[in-house]
This record gives sequence, C-alpha cells and structure tokens, in this order.
Amino acid sequence: MATRRILSGIRTTGPLHFGHYFGALRNWVNLQDEGYECFFLLADVQALTTHFENVSGIRDSVYEVVLDFLAVGLDPDRSTFFIQSQVPDLTELSMYFGMFTRVAELQQNPTIKEELKHQTDLLYGFLGYPVSQAADILLFSPVPLGSGDRLLVPVGEDQAPHIEGTRDIARRFNKLYGPTFVEPEILVGDVARLPGLDMDKMSKSRGNAIYLGDSADTVVAKIMSAYTDPNKQRVDDPGNPLGCAVYQYYSAFAPEIADEVIIACQRGEIGCVADKKRLIDVMNDFMEPIRSRRAEFAVNPDYVWEILARGNAHAREVGEAVMTVVRAAMKIDYPDLPTIELKPFRPRTW
Amino acid sequence: MATRRILSGIRTTGPLHFGHYFGALRNWVNLQDEGYECFFLLADVQALTTHFENVSGIRDSVYEVVLDFLAVGLDPDRSTFFIQSQVPDLTELSMYFGMFTRVAELQQNPTIKEELKHQTDLLYGFLGYPVSQAADILLFSPVPLGSGDRLLVPVGEDQAPHIEGTRDIARRFNKLYGPTFVEPEILVGDVARLPGLDMDKMSKSRGNAIYLGDSADTVVAKIMSAYTDPNKQRVDDPGNPLGCAVYQYYSAFAPEIADEVIIACQRGEIGCVADKKRLIDVMNDFMEPIRSRRAEFAVNPDYVWEILARGNAHAREVGEAVMTVVRAAMKIDYPDLPTIELKPFRPRTW
Repeated sequence: MATRRILSGIRTTGPLHFGHYFGALRNWVNLQDEGYECFFLLADVQALTTHFENVSGIRDSVYEVVLDFLAVGLDPDRSTFFIQSQVPDLTELSMYFGMFTRVAELQQNPTIKEELKHQTDLLYGFLGYPVSQAADILLFSPVPLGSGDRLLVPVGEDQAPHIEGTRDIARRFNKLYGPTFVEPEILVGDVARLPGLDMDKMSKSRGNAIYLGDSADTVVAKIMSAYTDPNKQRVDDPGNPLGCAVYQYYSAFAPEIADEVIIACQRGEIGCVADKKRLIDVMNDFMEPIRSRRAEFAVNPDYVWEILARGNAHAREVGEAVMTVVRAAMKIDYPDLPTIELKPFRPRTW
Repeated sequence: MATRRILSGIRTTGPLHFGHYFGALRNWVNLQDEGYECFFLLADVQALTTHFENVSGIRDSVYEVVLDFLAVGLDPDRSTFFIQSQVPDLTELSMYFGMFTRVAELQQNPTIKEELKHQTDLLYGFLGYPVSQAADILLFSPVPLGSGDRLLVPVGEDQAPHIEGTRDIARRFNKLYGPTFVEPEILVGDVARLPGLDMDKMSKSRGNAIYLGDSADTVVAKIMSAYTDPNKQRVDDPGNPLGCAVYQYYSAFAPEIADEVIIACQRGEIGCVADKKRLIDVMNDFMEPIRSRRAEFAVNPDYVWEILARGNAHAREVGEAVMTVVRAAMKIDYPDLPTIELKPFRPRTW
C-alpha cells in the first residue's frame, strides 16, 4: 500500500491564536482524522533565524504550542509532534542541499526578498531558510520510494513558491544522486484567513489576536473591543458587515448562522453590542472543548514532555531511514566502517 | 591541568603529496609527539562544496588520506582521525553559527572572494564554508572552559584570516549566550611551501605533484623530468639554483646538504643530471619509512577502517560534550524531555 504522509510545521515564537487555527490547525486535525500519516514540526531552529538574540522564551513557546496542538484535537497516538532542534538529521540534510543551491536563487525567494526590504544585514542562516525548509519536508519522504507514495504539505496558498522550491531541490538531488525523494505536493485546505480584532492581519506582535488558550472573560473583553462598522451608530442603522471583524468571526466560528447575522445587520435589525454578545457566546461554545482539553493536559506537564520525547524519537527513526539512503546516494556512507558499540557521552532523547 | 588541544584538517579530494607533508603533516606529527591532544579532520563534507557533482571518489579519497596519515607517523593511539560527515554535531553547530553570521561578512572572506572571481554562480554551501570551518574548529573547544585551556590550529599563515573569522564567531557566541568557547589560536609551524615539479604550486590538478605513496621508480621518473635552470646546459655552466625545483627539494628533504649543493651548482661543479640522481637517492631514503609504513597498513584495510570508526566515535564523544553546553546556552536543550530508550533505526558508527 502506498504511503501518504503529511508534513507541516509552525515556528515556536509564542502560543497559537485563531489565525493559526483556521489557517492550519483545523485542516491538520481533519487530515489526521482522514488517516494520513502526520508529522508536525515545532520549528525552534527556524525561530532562531529571527530570535537568535533572545532565546529565553524558546522552551516555553515549544511547550505552549504542544499544548495548543493537543487542545485542538491533534492526537499524539496518530500524529507525530517533534522539535526541530532534537532531530539533527534535519541540519545534516540541510547542509547537503546547500551544496547545490545557488545563492542567487535564494535571493529570489519571496520571504527572503520581503525581509531584505526591512533588514539590511542579511544573515546566513536566514538566507538559508528555504534550504532548511526543504530539509524539514524531504526528511519525511517515504523510502524506498514506492509507486503511489505521496508527501503532502498542508499550508496556505502563499506558501506555494516555497513548496515549488522544495520540489526543485528534490528534483535536483534525484538528478545528481539517483531517485531518492518524492516531489512533495502542496495541499491547500478550505482555509479562511481570520483577521485580527482590528481587521489587520492577526499576529502576536500587533496585539490583535485571540489565543487558543484565552479564557471566557478574555474573549468577552477582546470581542467587545473588536472593530465594527463606524457608520453604524444606532441599532437600526444599516451596517456594512463584510468589513467588520465581528462578521468575519461569525463566518469562521459559526458559518451556519453567519448569513442570518449578515442580513440582520444590513437591515438594521441588530445593534453591534447585541451582535458582539451573541458572538461571544458562539465563540465561547466553540472554544470550550479546546479550553478543557488544554487544561486537562496542562496539569500534567510530564506527560506533555513525554509526548514530545516520543515524537522526537519517532521523527528521528523515520528521518534516519531517509538519511541512510541519502548518505549512500552521496557516497558518504562508508560501508566499510565497522560499528563500534560505545556509550554516547550524553544520550540524546531516544 | 589545562587542556591543550590541536585541531586541523584536510579536504579529502585525493591522496596527499609532499606539499601537504611539508606544509602540514610534518608539523602535525611533531605536535603529536610533543604531547598535544590532537584531532585531525577528514573534510569530506567540505570536499562536497566543490565536488558535489562527482562524489564517486569520496570513499577512496578518505581511505587514501588515512593511509597517508598513518604513513607519515600520525599515531591513532595518540591522535584522533575522524570523518566530517560522520560527526553530525558539526553540521548542527554550523547551523547555529549561521544564525548570527552576516552574508556581507562571508563575502569578504579571502577564499570566497577568490572563488567568486572564477565562479559566477555562488552556491549556498560554498558561501558558508567559513561558518562550517568555525564549527569544525570550535566543536573541539575544551568544556567546561578552564583557565589556561587552549585550542591551537596548526595551519599555513595564509589561513590566518580564516582563524580570525573563527575567533570572531567564538566571541560573538560567547557574547550572545555566555562564555562557552575558547578563542582558537593559529599555530604557524616551520613550514616551507614545496613547489611542484614545474615550480608552480604543487597540486593534483596540475599533475606536478609527488605523492606520499609514490614508488621509488615513480620518483626517478618525476625528478628526472623536474624543472631546472634552462641556462645551465653543460655541467660547468654556473646554475641559478634558487629558481630550480631540484634545489627546493634538497632544502625540504635534506636541508643539511642543501647549502653544499647550492654552492656546487653555482660554481658549475655539478651537472643537473648528476644533481637529480643524488636528489632521487636522498628522496627515496627519506620516503622509504613512509612507504613501508603505508604498505604495512595497506594490507589490512579492516584495521584502517576500524581506526577511523574509533576516531569518529571519539570525536563525537568530545563534540557532544560541547554541543550539550551549546544547546543549554541557546536554550534548546529542553531539560524536561525524558530520555526514551529506543533502539536507533540504524545505528551510526559508535
């Protein structure tokens, strides 16, 4: 039977919000439930490309993100969560990919190009981000490559150029060293980009985000402050719901009643305060099971870390199978070297 | 007692010649004999920066270089020989160093600058060569750093800017994450750069090299074809020995008789053919013990590979001690992760 694998990941720079949920996590849970073999990467090394000067929060970020994974219904018995820095095969594969990737090409990558506008001092690690991402993905290429094997990357459509870059690296490796990697495919889900409370992009740095871990009271305070149509001053003023955060949230959290809300608002049948109060109930209902699963896991941090340790070990096991093939293809496997049984100086977590 | 460690390395792109011997190996043997803790790296990954399109010779190159190490008197019981690709901590450390190293800086590195003159399509891996070299060196920094600890890098003076770059990376790491690395020092030995048979730089690609493994007959043929002063046609013509390969070789292989030879040549007391014949005897005497040690090891390849396996294991053990400190300093050590005892998918060589 052909292997159908999912690989996706998230930078560990703080807890996750509902922009992440509707943009990625919900889709991941569905794919897990459809029976894909799922790998989800906690990108702490990639977080270093922008956070190398402030590493104090990395451990907590990783822990919060795993809690968020568990809270939304990702299941450690069916999906593998792992920490990028704990799977050193990733840096090794990245190093090899860098050998045949041109700097000029990397400079054309949309993310690098965008960053270069703000940042004059380009860092080597940051420039290599597409190479490192290709390694993150391709370490989970099924080996030996069977007919019908697929590696799917569920990400937003804006990531398409990056996945194309990874396909390109896979093709080049295969051409240089023989067929090794499957060409990964982007899997764009039914994804709505949820705006922030101010209708700008939802993000931690803008302070406009609703976090998966927010309490019911926090949701009340945040939604009551959310942006609505400034021309709708009185209840019976007709509103312009499409440009309003409240309506956007109805569409995401309760699409089944969003049409009803849009009509009532446009007809001036409901005021913004009542509208927000109803939304708060809708959202808190939606968030209740997420919140309670989060609380359930949060009381047992040892178990959460154990899940991660098992995930790291499984990712290394799967990744090592690929690296064995890669090293052989590149003739750096040295089959003549005998295996020497020595105790590692300090065991890594497997 | 303070640790005094030596780290040096050589790219594995073919067997070693007497340019390597007088430029590096002889000095390494002396340092080993003086009691330094010695690590010698077989740089197969670095060889990929220029040889990624042709990897078929890597295994043989590594094997030949180890034979050469053993032949000149490097002793596997006192020095550690290891293969770069088999110590994945090196790529990991290199990845972290890349996070805070600016591309602009790398482009100023003399080797990169030089290569950019010939090569229009700069490759990412090649651009990162100074970062990777810093990791190769600093993985052998003594930890915990004690007073008086030193890490010495015996290389040619032309490598001084590279070592300065590594010191810079060590300083920056220490400033960002706390005192971790010793600043390595260049150790320039009593090194003469031996020219090739044509007086150009000795190198494999120019076909002007005398290899450590060359037979006595090959030395005869090569020396008889060596460049000498074209104005010395007859025995009693006065020669210009300083511009002549034969005299350069006397200086290297038998400095105690070089002065005598220079005078005889300048006075027209000896002809080039007689001069070369004497040199052949001098060189073959010099090479005899090297040749016989090489032959001794060459009949037992299993033992040679075992030496390498032990060297790899020791380098990983020493390197892992540094990486443990590095990961903790960068807060990516996750002390809460439990150790899970799983059998690795395929054991690496330790």
